[in-house]
Amino acid sequence: MIRKPRLFTPGPTPLHPAVLEAMARPIPHHRTDEFRAVFKECVAGLQGFLKTADDVLVLACSGTGGMEAALVNVLSPGEKMLALVAGNFGERWASIGKAYGMDVRVLKAAWGDAVPPEEAARALDADPAIKGVFVQLSESSTGARHDIEALARITRARPGTLLVVDAISGAGAMALETAAWGVDVVVVGSQKALALPPGLAFLSVSARAWERIESAKAPRFYFDLRRERKAQAGGESAFTPAISNMVALRAALEFVKRLGGVDALVKNAGTLAACTRAAASALGLPLVAPKAHGDALTALYPPSGVDSGAIVKALKAEFASTVACGQGGLKGKIFRVAHLGYYDTTDIFGLLGSLEVVLHRLGHRFDLGTGIAAAERAYLERAPAPVGGKA
Amino acid sequence: MIRKPRLFTPGPTPLHPAVLEAMARPIPHHRTDEFRAVFKECVAGLQGFLKTADDVLVLACSGTGGMEAALVNVLSPGEKMLALVAGNFGERWASIGKAYGMDVRVLKAAWGDAVPPEEAARALDADPAIKGVFVQLSESSTGARHDIEALARITRARPGTLLVVDAISGAGAMALETAAWGVDVVVVGSQKALALPPGLAFLSVSARAWERIESAKAPRFYFDLRRERKAQAGGESAFTPAISNMVALRAALEFVKRLGGVDALVKNAGTLAACTRAAASALGLPLVAPKAHGDALTALYPPSGVDSGAIVKALKAEFASTVACGQGGLKGKIFRVAHLGYYDTTDIFGLLGSLEVVLHRLGHRFDLGTGIAAAERAYLERAPAPVGGKA
Repeated sequence: MIRKPRLFTPGPTPLHPAVLEAMARPIPHHRTDEFRAVFKECVAGLQGFLKTADDVLVLACSGTGGMEAALVNVLSPGEKMLALVAGNFGERWASIGKAYGMDVRVLKAAWGDAVPPEEAARALDADPAIKGVFVQLSESSTGARHDIEALARITRARPGTLLVVDAISGAGAMALETAAWGVDVVVVGSQKALALPPGLAFLSVSARAWERIESAKAPRFYFDLRRERKAQAGGESAFTPAISNMVALRAALEFVKRLGGVDALVKNAGTLAACTRAAASALGLPLVAPKAHGDALTALYPPSGVDSGAIVKALKAEFASTVACGQGGLKGKIFRVAHLGYYDTTDIFGLLGSLEVVLHRLGHRFDLGTGIAAAERAYLERAPAPVGGKA
Repeated sequence: MIRKPRLFTPGPTPLHPAVLEAMARPIPHHRTDEFRAVFKECVAGLQGFLKTADDVLVLACSGTGGMEAALVNVLSPGEKMLALVAGNFGERWASIGKAYGMDVRVLKAAWGDAVPPEEAARALDADPAIKGVFVQLSESSTGARHDIEALARITRARPGTLLVVDAISGAGAMALETAAWGVDVVVVGSQKALALPPGLAFLSVSARAWERIESAKAPRFYFDLRRERKAQAGGESAFTPAISNMVALRAALEFVKRLGGVDALVKNAGTLAACTRAAASALGLPLVAPKAHGDALTALYPPSGVDSGAIVKALKAEFASTVACGQGGLKGKIFRVAHLGYYDTTDIFGLLGSLEVVLHRLGHRFDLGTGIAAAERAYLERAPAPVGGKA
């Protein structure tokens, strides 16, 4: 049987065809007007994507590089930072802070939950010396969502405290109003909702973050945002940019624009997530984040008596579909299905069909078709009949 | 919502990724050893694909060009030919014959049926001057299959009568034993099971067909198979070949080989066709070819009260999936879903999910999920549990 390789992982996600085409083009030189125009178009597009007129800087690195760049530019060694840790990627904020000698305070949530904003407010009230709150919009290890709007309300009211959001997998999949909410630094990765290959990170930086950056003392060279700001104002990066990836970024942003902007992309992920949650409920697969669930991905426990690793392996072996395993404490206990980026309803129907076959083979007893039927109902509830269709 | 364009038409079919890559490569010159090697590899691969050691010639033309080449090389003007007409493409054999002044006899089957081999035998018995039988393996307008094995048994016993088979959409989707059955000329198109773009036609030619070709008098120049045979023996075509398509053909044949050969490709289409028929039955969509159905595609009537054109339009508008309309007398009455080529089970589950949504919107009353459940059962019956899976 033919088995087309399909990625259902929360990064990398499937590349958009326009991205593939762009990556295959002959490479322009980066110190040319031609490329500077590409660069500036990308920055303008990213500002739209992140809903802000703040500077958006482009770095040639992975998402973690973007997180490190954000942290080392706004803190000085020994300063207090508050990491809101609800999973594997929350722990990464703490790890980067420790690597640079920050005084890392941690507020933990059980994996699958999110840290309540009021807990963060209490921690900041108890210790006004905390210089920054570091958090994930989407915690990819569990699919949980932090309430960034509420957190920004808290930090906006505290002039000495910045809000730094890892929206690497969240931006473009869930609402994020960078300027309207008042988020100081947002970090995004290319291999997520933007349907690009890995290799680029994007950072939006607010005016009050720039004030801090000018005086922050953590050591940095490649990730020095002051130098990047200067260079990128002229459509160049301080060091060699990932040229082809930038050309592809322009194509990806053009795709988002044609779709109807970032809100349309967010709605797409939300619909696919709703379909997947409905199917999971019908098939008896408990959500890892039942209360705090986001829409970038859905993390699921297997039905009782079935091993999650066997589901992941069987989807790959029989259908060449890759879903993600669990991480950290959830390793071997869950599997994760992505919605962020270039996925459509047909993709999810296809995956759910193959998941039903796999669950059936693994001995789970349910009526075949039940999951997809629930997904179809969820889709119909969210998607109004297109013009010309009968309700 | 994101809507990925998907072709479910019986040609063109989705291009294999290796084909896309090959088509994007810099073009070699065709009068070089490098290209001659490509050409020879392609011919060897096509012989495997068609299961014959006969000459297989490659022409730069569409499938219809291949049909014309077959006909004008084996007949002389005024000679009698028998066209077995079970649909739109059967009629094409008759049209080509008439255009070249042949004495065209026609045996018709109702659209959706196939012409029974014994009827062909009776016609040949009644008129021994008939020089060739022209027929489709898969009649793409209805999805019906002709019994080529039985027809070849009849023509093999008649030294003056050749069997010429349009397997343009049938080869690689349904069993075809060119040599073992004794088919004289087989015509194949590139944009079908081989997952290539249109632009190439392939013809296998038996020894007894070559005898006829040497003396046949119909006018031909571009399609003169004698000239092509001479040139292609040296790894060149008589006229400029479709170079990039040939490089891609080598990649496509390599894909078929890695899949397990043409039999694996045929099994794939057979499984997807069985899933689709099962879903159609569960959803109340009558087959156009209930008795003579092939596996290259499935042609379906809409449920009563629903317009087939509305289904085609809605699948395109809401999901960007293209299925084919009806042709000729079935125009506006049916729709057709392809299985030949680069499709997998996940594709079909995805299409059936979107079809259920569309049928529901168009007012057809059925339990959501019913069609996919039937497809999953059909898949499970045909596909044994992979190694490591629990039955």
